Amino acid sequence: MDIPTFEDVLEAHERIAPYIHRTPVMTSSHLNQLTGAEIFFKCENLQKVGAFKARGASNAVFGLSDAAAAKGVATHSSGNHAGALSFAAALRGIDATVVMPRNAPSAKKAAVRSYGGRIIECEPTQAARETTLEQVVAESGADVVHPYDDSRVIAGQATCALELHQELEALDAVVAPIGGGGLISGTCLTLSTLSPETRIYAAEPENADDAYRSFHAGEIITQDAQQSVADGLKTNLKPRTWHFVSRFVSDVLVASEDEILDAMYLTWERMKIIIEPSSAVPLAVMLKNRQLFHGKRVGVIITGGNVDLKHCPGCK
Amino acid sequence: MDIPTFEDVLEAHERIAPYIHRTPVMTSSHLNQLTGAEIFFKCENLQKVGAFKARGASNAVFGLSDAAAAKGVATHSSGNHAGALSFAAALRGIDATVVMPRNAPSAKKAAVRSYGGRIIECEPTQAARETTLEQVVAESGADVVHPYDDSRVIAGQATCALELHQELEALDAVVAPIGGGGLISGTCLTLSTLSPETRIYAAEPENADDAYRSFHAGEIITQDAQQSVADGLKTNLKPRTWHFVSRFVSDVLVASEDEILDAMYLTWERMKIIIEPSSAVPLAVMLKNRQLFHGKRVGVIITGGNVDLKHCPGCK
Repeated sequence: MDIPTFEDVLEAHERIAPYIHRTPVMTSSHLNQLTGAEIFFKCENLQKVGAFKARGASNAVFGLSDAAAAKGVATHSSGNHAGALSFAAALRGIDATVVMPRNAPSAKKAAVRSYGGRIIECEPTQAARETTLEQVVAESGADVVHPYDDSRVIAGQATCALELHQELEALDAVVAPIGGGGLISGTCLTLSTLSPETRIYAAEPENADDAYRSFHAGEIITQDAQQSVADGLKTNLKPRTWHFVSRFVSDVLVASEDEILDAMYLTWERMKIIIEPSSAVPLAVMLKNRQLFHGKRVGVIITGGNVDLKHCPGCK
Repeated sequence: MDIPTFEDVLEAHERIAPYIHRTPVMTSSHLNQLTGAEIFFKCENLQKVGAFKARGASNAVFGLSDAAAAKGVATHSSGNHAGALSFAAALRGIDATVVMPRNAPSAKKAAVRSYGGRIIECEPTQAARETTLEQVVAESGADVVHPYDDSRVIAGQATCALELHQELEALDAVVAPIGGGGLISGTCLTLSTLSPETRIYAAEPENADDAYRSFHAGEIITQDAQQSVADGLKTNLKPRTWHFVSRFVSDVLVASEDEILDAMYLTWERMKIIIEPSSAVPLAVMLKNRQLFHGKRVGVIITGGNVDLKHCPGCK
């Protein structure tokens, strides 16, 4: 199992710089008052494709040799990674094939198509996804870019914490959502090198708390069919992301569905930015663990802003 | 009738700089594609109090002598100006009194109170508003800061176009919403001095098209009880704002209620920022007048982001 290094992060940052935004860091005096902390929001909802996933996908796609790239890239995903990989492939002028369950939301399919990605539908089971992806690879020789269990992807996501550190230095803590662990692994990779005193907290929905359970069990615990409004966070850890989580994360903090939606609407109302439910989990856990963050300078990664406004989750 | 000068704008910018944000300018490749223009959105939804009104109110409040300030400020308004004046007064440590109709939305009243403003309720008629405000002034000697018919306010709003020009220079056009005309007057004041070749378009709801009618009649036409989702734009021009509109505006363009809401949700979805309906009128008129803006570099002022998400206008 290859594990990315900090050198990979620096290379990734240089490689993807022409294709992604250096996203702004925003603050809110109101949310500082509510949490008792000084929060710096790294706004990846304003990133290309509306999510930090553009970083890892671009790093994987633009790191390919010309020969490998000519065969295209492929993945199975029904979330932001699918759009991000299609986006990066289009920029490089190569094919992207995305295996998606037949019942994936039409908005997600539309996003992939809007970036020129090819969708192959399969039955909505993990086995069908994997078999279908294997067929795609057997036929095309496409390079598989996993949403998070991939060193190139982790090194790409790590550039987000790199920019946060370049701008703010020596934060007391960084809080980021955890699903499969790609973003948090990248965050660990960057900060364990540049700012080892910064505490790293992973924020997870109670309803999909496999990382929380893994953290306390000391080994990967997987759970199937987790359900949460934070639909980007239903995936399980893999050994490559567990490597980082088990070594560098200070704690995994959880929030309920209502707490997540409240934090999401609070951010919409007060910061005037659209964030998706997954992005609200860090603020939700900060609001219920005020003592942990009181008086601290805290970086929060707003992971994405892709909400289907026609079917607004829990819209009031 | 005193008319502000460009000198007043420069003074205003220096005066209010410590109290307001220099708001970011955002772009969207998707919205550029849709309109055929290159748009630069000046994001006053990310301004203090969530609206450009913080500029004019701060300029009025911080321009007062200590003796005048000690008597406080007052206005009648049920919109963003009420919150902005309360905000600026609190920063200076003086009283703000806002006359509001009894039936004003509770969210607007809550905003004023959250900034420490005092609300005096009156019957929901124009006459009652004015009589009540006169009583407040007679008792307190407070300085009346009109939402737009005030040179200090116009000079303050003009700092928005000043920042846009400092950042981008020589835009082909600027599009801003028009209600009573404070923002558009300030925009005219700044650009007629710094960039007279930039065309200035005022964007207005069809349902509250008094400025459109005035522009074409060549004199102020007032209309009562105008109704629109763009609730900040229901007010009528006054001679002071007509001075600028009649001299420097290239055209007044109108959009329907549906077009405004579509443009609002398009901005939410694609730019991941919350804008209020009034702020969407410029994009709405650009989408229906593509030929006018095709290939042009266009500044658009996003005036505010104060939407009651619990009663989302036309929420899909």
